Amino acid sequence: MNDSRTVYLDHAATTPMTDVAVEAMTAHLREVGNASSLHASGRRARRVVEESRETVAQALGCRPGEVVFTSGGTEADNLAVKGLYWSRRDADPRRTRILATAVEHHAVLDALAWLEEHEGAVVELLPVDPDGRLRIDALRVAVEREPESVALVTVMWANNEVGTLQPVGEVVAVAHPHGIPVHTDAVQAVGAVPVDFAASGVDALSLSGHKVGGPQGVGALVVRREVELAALVHGGGQERDVRSGTLDVPAIAGFAAAVELAVKQQSEHAARLTGLRDDLVDAVRRAVPDAVLNGDPVDRLPGNAHLSFPGCEGDSLLMLLDARGIECSTGSACSAGVPQPSHVLLAMGRSSDGARSSLRFSLGHTSSAADVEAVAGAIGAVVERARAARA
Amino acid sequence: MNDSRTVYLDHAATTPMTDVAVEAMTAHLREVGNASSLHASGRRARRVVEESRETVAQALGCRPGEVVFTSGGTEADNLAVKGLYWSRRDADPRRTRILATAVEHHAVLDALAWLEEHEGAVVELLPVDPDGRLRIDALRVAVEREPESVALVTVMWANNEVGTLQPVGEVVAVAHPHGIPVHTDAVQAVGAVPVDFAASGVDALSLSGHKVGGPQGVGALVVRREVELAALVHGGGQERDVRSGTLDVPAIAGFAAAVELAVKQQSEHAARLTGLRDDLVDAVRRAVPDAVLNGDPVDRLPGNAHLSFPGCEGDSLLMLLDARGIECSTGSACSAGVPQPSHVLLAMGRSSDGARSSLRFSLGHTSSAADVEAVAGAIGAVVERARAARA
Repeated sequence: MNDSRTVYLDHAATTPMTDVAVEAMTAHLREVGNASSLHASGRRARRVVEESRETVAQALGCRPGEVVFTSGGTEADNLAVKGLYWSRRDADPRRTRILATAVEHHAVLDALAWLEEHEGAVVELLPVDPDGRLRIDALRVAVEREPESVALVTVMWANNEVGTLQPVGEVVAVAHPHGIPVHTDAVQAVGAVPVDFAASGVDALSLSGHKVGGPQGVGALVVRREVELAALVHGGGQERDVRSGTLDVPAIAGFAAAVELAVKQQSEHAARLTGLRDDLVDAVRRAVPDAVLNGDPVDRLPGNAHLSFPGCEGDSLLMLLDARGIECSTGSACSAGVPQPSHVLLAMGRSSDGARSSLRFSLGHTSSAADVEAVAGAIGAVVERARAARA
Repeated sequence: MNDSRTVYLDHAATTPMTDVAVEAMTAHLREVGNASSLHASGRRARRVVEESRETVAQALGCRPGEVVFTSGGTEADNLAVKGLYWSRRDADPRRTRILATAVEHHAVLDALAWLEEHEGAVVELLPVDPDGRLRIDALRVAVEREPESVALVTVMWANNEVGTLQPVGEVVAVAHPHGIPVHTDAVQAVGAVPVDFAASGVDALSLSGHKVGGPQGVGALVVRREVELAALVHGGGQERDVRSGTLDVPAIAGFAAAVELAVKQQSEHAARLTGLRDDLVDAVRRAVPDAVLNGDPVDRLPGNAHLSFPGCEGDSLLMLLDARGIECSTGSACSAGVPQPSHVLLAMGRSSDGARSSLRFSLGHTSSAADVEAVAGAIGAVVERARAARA
């Protein structure tokens, strides 16, 4: 267990497993059975997987057959963009363009960069407004310039750093008249805002277990059955031949339980976190009047408070808060440790210095008013110290 | 839990988690922390990962920095063959040939088939002898014909169906003088026979958690630091930038505990299983005198008894045994369910009918003399019934 004094405000990086998820997972750890085996133990394992698939489908508004289990959100994103690119280009070699926002997660951006370097893709990163929202007109222009050369469009549901929600419905409305498939990275969105796969109109949607109170090492790509998708990992032919490898039965059971609970509690959870988050932002602004809230002030993830502190290094703030038992992030955990300004903030028009002066507090299911009070009590002194260190 | 009357003889498909692995894993399920986060919880998660990496390295005779955690054996195989192919071909476009045995696991074979269809590879599947062992002269001829065009050689350590051990040391001796890297799928070998990465000379080695008493959904590719390897999954840059995605801390801890125990007990385990396995084969032959043991009678996995029953359908035998609570396989679980003869037995020179008449009994750490007795008591009647059904 973590130290009871720890104020954990990095739920966007990973959030603790919920009790139902731990229970569902541990219930299967001592069972034996490969879900591809034909005997009774294998069929029992398969039943757990298929019941989990139905649970996930029910929660996300898709059909069970549309759920492809993966090892997590990163693999789901890679499978989506590479799999769609390969299958679309193989069907028509003109389709080499990939349209994405400039603020996608690295799991999408780095996969796209590889497709560009290695597989002949032409990646166009579309601009966002100062709040980090895709400029939908830019997408429209890019599509209509030459729709037949677009392999896919990928636009995240909600930004992992600044929390801004993207206009996914509008993206679908632009792409679909031209038959262009749309992928969305919904890793941060599921359980935080309403996510309904069928209603959204997207063709593929990524989610991750450990962002919704499930285990690490498991996630899913929801993909419409009509959509052709090349595999990234080949082998035994599991998951519609799109994702081979022995199915991780306990993790899938824990994942399904977590998704079910997260979606069921989403509305109540969002209301509670929005309140705490607004309190946190208010408290920070009282202590540091020139702190700036980044991202859309309203259309954002309920648990996300991403703030810039002029004249500070985000890394210094992070370390000073950590020393006081308050855990947050300067951006995404996945690129943390690499001292470069956030591509998200740069795309939003911030200077390199401005981008470096930011902290992300992300709240989750274990967050409380006491966590907000801890930040309120520490942030003024911490910012003062970081500014002094830099002066 | 499985029914206490179940006789589980399908450990090659998946084996129950050992107590130490369950304990190591569950100890971390309720902890929070992304191993890429910079704060105390993140650093604590990272410490678990790095200690696990050291444990795995110690057990396998490699350096900690050579262990790349993956979602399992299938992903490790895909990463190895695709990653080596891409990096070797990118360094020299003449390197398009991939040499493999005809009896590799589907995780290798299907990855190679995709490289051939999609990425310009030329795959040469090398012949095996009637016991399923690579004809090393065929490899030598294939390499020496044009060594500069060989991207990699991949030869499994032990065959997952018939259990035959492959001459991995000889493969290295053929490939390395030409600077050609060697990958080996050691998924079935680790914990069953001695496996020392450095001593083996191979450049990359795949293993899987759930085959050694660890969790499903985790595995590793051990790869020499000097070897260039393109990534299969891009993103946050974890695992030397070769395998992005949030590290699955609990699974990695469980995996390390399982690998450590399996390797520590390997010699004793092998002696015990060899005894049980020989008893099983003897008992089957007494009951069914024309049953044939496939694979090398001596140089084979200790827990593997792969037998052909002339005049029977393997699928029928499997179902009849399952009805009596005895669980085994007709081949690899990963291709089970697909009614086609085993590519391994066909490569060994068996007819399609002969290949279809086989069963694999695979023993593991929970196997006992009672399991062998159960098979001894059932197999005669089951074979008789399967033959009658077919006549």
